[in-house]
Amino acid sequence: MSKRKLNVGLIGYQFMGKAHSNAYRQVGRFFDLPVEVGMHTICGRTESAVKDAAQKMGWDNVETDWRKVVANPDIDIIDVSTPGDSHCEIACAAAEAGKIVFCEKPIGNTLDEAKTMLDAVKKAGVANAVFHNYRKAPAVALAKKMIAGGKLGTIYHMRAVYLQDWIADPNFPLVWRLQKEKCGSGTHGDINAHIIDLGRHLLGEFDEVVGMMHTFIKKRPLAAGIDDKLGAKASSEMGDVTVDDAAAFLAKFKNGALGTFEASRFAVGRKNHNRFEINGSKGSLIFNLERMNELEYYNNEDPDGEHGFRLIQATEASHPYAGNYWPVGHIIGYEHTFVNLVADALTAIAEGKPCSPDFVDGYENQRVLDAVEKSHESRAWVKL
Amino acid sequence: MSKRKLNVGLIGYQFMGKAHSNAYRQVGRFFDLPVEVGMHTICGRTESAVKDAAQKMGWDNVETDWRKVVANPDIDIIDVSTPGDSHCEIACAAAEAGKIVFCEKPIGNTLDEAKTMLDAVKKAGVANAVFHNYRKAPAVALAKKMIAGGKLGTIYHMRAVYLQDWIADPNFPLVWRLQKEKCGSGTHGDINAHIIDLGRHLLGEFDEVVGMMHTFIKKRPLAAGIDDKLGAKASSEMGDVTVDDAAAFLAKFKNGALGTFEASRFAVGRKNHNRFEINGSKGSLIFNLERMNELEYYNNEDPDGEHGFRLIQATEASHPYAGNYWPVGHIIGYEHTFVNLVADALTAIAEGKPCSPDFVDGYENQRVLDAVEKSHESRAWVKL
Amino acid sequence: MSKRKLNVGLIGYQFMGKAHSNAYRQVGRFFDLPVEVGMHTICGRTESAVKDAAQKMGWDNVETDWRKVVANPDIDIIDVSTPGDSHCEIACAAAEAGKIVFCEKPIGNTLDEAKTMLDAVKKAGVANAVFHNYRKAPAVALAKKMIAGGKLGTIYHMRAVYLQDWIADPNFPLVWRLQKEKCGSGTHGDINAHIIDLGRHLLGEFDEVVGMMHTFIKKRPLAAGIDDKLGAKASSEMGDVTVDDAAAFLAKFKNGALGTFEASRFAVGRKNHNRFEINGSKGSLIFNLERMNELEYYNNEDPDGEHGFRLIQATEASHPYAGNYWPVGHIIGYEHTFVNLVADALTAIAEGKPCSPDFVDGYENQRVLDAVEKSHESRAWVKL
Amino acid sequence: MSKRKLNVGLIGYQFMGKAHSNAYRQVGRFFDLPVEVGMHTICGRTESAVKDAAQKMGWDNVETDWRKVVANPDIDIIDVSTPGDSHCEIACAAAEAGKIVFCEKPIGNTLDEAKTMLDAVKKAGVANAVFHNYRKAPAVALAKKMIAGGKLGTIYHMRAVYLQDWIADPNFPLVWRLQKEKCGSGTHGDINAHIIDLGRHLLGEFDEVVGMMHTFIKKRPLAAGIDDKLGAKASSEMGDVTVDDAAAFLAKFKNGALGTFEASRFAVGRKNHNRFEINGSKGSLIFNLERMNELEYYNNEDPDGEHGFRLIQATEASHPYAGNYWPVGHIIGYEHTFVNLVADALTAIAEGKPCSPDFVDGYENQRVLDAVEKSHESRAWVKL
Repeated sequence: MSKRKLNVGLIGYQFMGKAHSNAYRQVGRFFDLPVEVGMHTICGRTESAVKDAAQKMGWDNVETDWRKVVANPDIDIIDVSTPGDSHCEIACAAAEAGKIVFCEKPIGNTLDEAKTMLDAVKKAGVANAVFHNYRKAPAVALAKKMIAGGKLGTIYHMRAVYLQDWIADPNFPLVWRLQKEKCGSGTHGDINAHIIDLGRHLLGEFDEVVGMMHTFIKKRPLAAGIDDKLGAKASSEMGDVTVDDAAAFLAKFKNGALGTFEASRFAVGRKNHNRFEINGSKGSLIFNLERMNELEYYNNEDPDGEHGFRLIQATEASHPYAGNYWPVGHIIGYEHTFVNLVADALTAIAEGKPCSPDFVDGYENQRVLDAVEKSHESRAWVKL
Repeated sequence: MSKRKLNVGLIGYQFMGKAHSNAYRQVGRFFDLPVEVGMHTICGRTESAVKDAAQKMGWDNVETDWRKVVANPDIDIIDVSTPGDSHCEIACAAAEAGKIVFCEKPIGNTLDEAKTMLDAVKKAGVANAVFHNYRKAPAVALAKKMIAGGKLGTIYHMRAVYLQDWIADPNFPLVWRLQKEKCGSGTHGDINAHIIDLGRHLLGEFDEVVGMMHTFIKKRPLAAGIDDKLGAKASSEMGDVTVDDAAAFLAKFKNGALGTFEASRFAVGRKNHNRFEINGSKGSLIFNLERMNELEYYNNEDPDGEHGFRLIQATEASHPYAGNYWPVGHIIGYEHTFVNLVADALTAIAEGKPCSPDFVDGYENQRVLDAVEKSHESRAWVKL
Repeated sequence: MSKRKLNVGLIGYQFMGKAHSNAYRQVGRFFDLPVEVGMHTICGRTESAVKDAAQKMGWDNVETDWRKVVANPDIDIIDVSTPGDSHCEIACAAAEAGKIVFCEKPIGNTLDEAKTMLDAVKKAGVANAVFHNYRKAPAVALAKKMIAGGKLGTIYHMRAVYLQDWIADPNFPLVWRLQKEKCGSGTHGDINAHIIDLGRHLLGEFDEVVGMMHTFIKKRPLAAGIDDKLGAKASSEMGDVTVDDAAAFLAKFKNGALGTFEASRFAVGRKNHNRFEINGSKGSLIFNLERMNELEYYNNEDPDGEHGFRLIQATEASHPYAGNYWPVGHIIGYEHTFVNLVADALTAIAEGKPCSPDFVDGYENQRVLDAVEKSHESRAWVKL
Repeated sequence: MSKRKLNVGLIGYQFMGKAHSNAYRQVGRFFDLPVEVGMHTICGRTESAVKDAAQKMGWDNVETDWRKVVANPDIDIIDVSTPGDSHCEIACAAAEAGKIVFCEKPIGNTLDEAKTMLDAVKKAGVANAVFHNYRKAPAVALAKKMIAGGKLGTIYHMRAVYLQDWIADPNFPLVWRLQKEKCGSGTHGDINAHIIDLGRHLLGEFDEVVGMMHTFIKKRPLAAGIDDKLGAKASSEMGDVTVDDAAAFLAKFKNGALGTFEASRFAVGRKNHNRFEINGSKGSLIFNLERMNELEYYNNEDPDGEHGFRLIQATEASHPYAGNYWPVGHIIGYEHTFVNLVADALTAIAEGKPCSPDFVDGYENQRVLDAVEKSHESRAWVKL
């Protein structure tokens, strides 16, 4: 008996478009899913570019108007992978059209947008998911399982950083990710959002925060040509950077744990250093995205004299997701976090369960982002 | 103008079949190739299993008799991914039929077979490649580039280990990889072959070797059901292990460098620890497959007081292969070494150049394997 | 010609007493100093214990009343290594008596005490030093030299943690280090003080801070017998923990850099994890006390494709202090930070220069500690 | 009641003299020994230099003729820390004079000398010890304890390297350590000897070996002035290097384990990289002298999914030696291995037990060194 087929319409075709396309293409090759995925339509405003993308990434059809994709009755899932300023409009339209909605993070550019989007999918009763993909790294999924299984006991601390340096050069151009009207915030929404999600995922809800945001380089050359992270070039004209270069905050979690969170694109030498350490009464865990197949684990209940952080290679058949890929010690990469996320989301949808993470997570994430921004302005703690 | 399409017939569908299939499926998605790849036919002896594999891995046709695949005029490339005992026959038939021949390593189960295969492709004048895929890890390709560019000066040392532990449990069953008639040798041909290839690739030809081979566990339960690394189960009947569990050798290279090589499947705790260190007069390099996106580099010409091994994340756009995938710090995995190898091989074929590595490499590799075996028997140094 | 001899009177003989005694004993063996050190008198309240300590640690005389030590005209240096509640009284008396004053950190239990002490040494015009010993780890001294030499360019970030777990067990007794009247504060003054000092040393003065302090375990068994970190035992009676278990704060430095600082004794698995990372426009540095002979350095000006954090073993003859000890790669340990500090202090005194760090540093450190405490109370940023 | 005092006469005052002096000076400060150590006499041929050394290192008397030291009835222990060519004569004379004999490794320059020395101490019935100090690093002592306690099960593998680069520069002068008549062999006797000792200590006796030795740089400038590792300068005259620059061998141990050993002074970037990995059926251990306070341990019996090499900081009170020094996480250094060795030796002597390691170990070590040299000449395996 053949499986139900879910056709995807992907809006956006740059960095995230490439990652999502790969996920749809590969997910059925490594997971036994209850549904089949159809790579139906990819959509972008520049016809020639989107045509190239379609051919390269394996999409059957091309569209330049996202409204037509949303209106297409053959399409089941709308995947919103555009810059943040169009998320809300597209996602709400898709929900209203009864589509399953997948969306890049942060779901909106403001808390209001996020609320609107969450309301839209709730009202429409449509399945929804948000691409907080790092939950799906095998080592993070293992961490989640261990914490949920009580391996860490009472949690005392989480310290998380997400450090990059791709704009540390003052001559790097003013791409859309540095313009508030396009992306809502800078480092904060782009990468702080990821570690906030990991905090919520692993420790539960935040209780209060106090934070700071800062822009080191206030003017940059405008982008010439490609307007995204990869391949952007500087023009000779200058413009104002309207977002933060770095953002950090202290946090208290509702479970009593203390948190420190810091994100920067000015940590010279750090490329994609999404790292957390969690300390509990029974043990501790350390994760670093750049070595995303590894989880460090300290078991406080090891015999005297034999304590130490152990380096678990989360590539064993018994580890989350790992059994779908290669033998132990044969690592997977960044792109697989998207494959895993799509596999989980499709499975949940087929089973009639909420996706995890979904728009509730997207919204709660944005509440934390928003609270940190408010704290930055008020120079004081802000309750969630 | 449409590209020339090369149709592949893949013989074998287990671990290597899965890795090769993924490579053919993905290569055109990440590389701009001068040719197109067709996933024409997959072939295995058990019809139901090969049908499942075809659907899962994306092949258009299924065949149970490899001779029919070789005879099929629509097929351009025969990829031999079976256990070693059938490599020679299939590859020679494919060459004779004028096909491009791709083959898993080691190409033959004996040096004679390897010679026969090399002669066959030479005589037929067909393009050929061997899957020494670790050459194609970005960090290894970077190492190659740096050595070729003189960054290491005169090479003094290479020390390489390939350590695993998947058969350290005496109850692990006697799969085909532990039977001399199926695989030629054990750890030696399976994983020593890989580090020998890296030695040849990076330092050039071996001059002489002295080695030892050893079997720690001499009897094991026969395999019940699946007869490969993944998913094998033990039956109650016992059989003789006829291959080595571990093999090590000292080497002198023709360029004057000294080498130490060791491979074991009894290095408890080591999962896929293919690691080398190369020391030259101007610097040193360290690679470890389990962190295959990283290369450690010591530059002896750094300023006084600032020397140290630096951890290069070989994920920058300027690093080999990395620009085809994701932004810096977003790692790739094991499977991508095959994608890169296929990309290189297809490009070479389109340009009328020899693939690298090809059957000459496969044969030279086997000469070293053979010399170590001879040394093990004679208990003395053996000249290549 | 014989050197001037400076006789030391050491007040306190437990953990810090042991570390300081070793420093006085060893300093002349490894450094060519302009003065000689005499281990004249050690002082503690329990006669038998201090006698044992004197013999074990190599002191010529024993005293049970610190006032007599201060009054002794043969003694040149008073070293205050008692718990914090007696620092102020002893140090001020020593200054008034015209002695050189060395003091453990934090110099006082309150900012007022620190001010009193600073005023006292200034008024008396006596040389003074404070044991912020981690400045003197070779790798930290190298970091200082590199930053001062402009190797990091404009500094953007410092993130520092000092993590331990020695009181994570709720049954660990209520030693003096957990009683506010004895030690002023807990983790904050004990180990946050160290990373604050490193921040001031390496980046300059703090501008403003916002922080939190927290006590996870509010009641503990009283200590039976030994009342210090090492060897303490629990009695059956319980008492209130009156200090913080963990403290963290965000900071802005006067030079424009952002800082995050966190100290905890509840980071299970972390033993003495005093770690910092500093990011500047030209490069970054990482230090970890548990590997105190190593400094990681990222040079942003390395050639394209060869960037990476390099692991400098700060044990070369050209590195600070290292030439006084052993050949490269032969590491030194914790105790040597005190030897180096004493060597520097004695040299400065002989040359009529201020010691570094001195009571000004002690006082400025305490201003930061105090600001964080005030911020904890006001729940808002506090200007220094 | 006062303790028995053992007076030491130290022959030699350069690198090893400094390390041994420190050990005698410090041992009683950190260990409760059953005997007292007297730093009676230091001896060297150049009077002014030895006088300086005596003052610097804390010796009471100075002598320029080692025979007078041996003849001095006040001296109990003769410590032979000269270059290898005088070990045999001095040690035998000391034994004959009834002295306790301590000796640097390798005890002789040839196997014959080692035999003569062993016979001499046996005949004289005097206590004796050899400075294979790395046995006494806390992490190595912990490894020994764990292996002896069965934590590793059946041992399959030991792989050890000792890598340095201090003569990789062809202009480094021809110090005594590069002259066969002074030191017997080069890298082999200097540092291969250390890892051979660790092999014997941890796994037991060697059964057979096959090895190679090589000299990369055959001529060097003669040394001008200081003729040791530290501070040597090149003259303009050239001389022949008569020892090996690198030596490697394969080994079989009597317990059935396989070994690979490699020592080089041409491993550019490696400063003092004495590293071993031992794999057994129940677990594995890794040690690296440059991080000598750490031991990596893989426990094969950890729960499924939680396996990994754990990083033990061998600085806990329950770890060997560590309790004599500082709290957990406060590391010790290279010099402490000598302190620990002297503490153990003096304790053994006081208890009338053999020191460990003693001249039997020195001799057995030299048998392995000799067998490797013979194998190098015969180009074949050599039985021990």
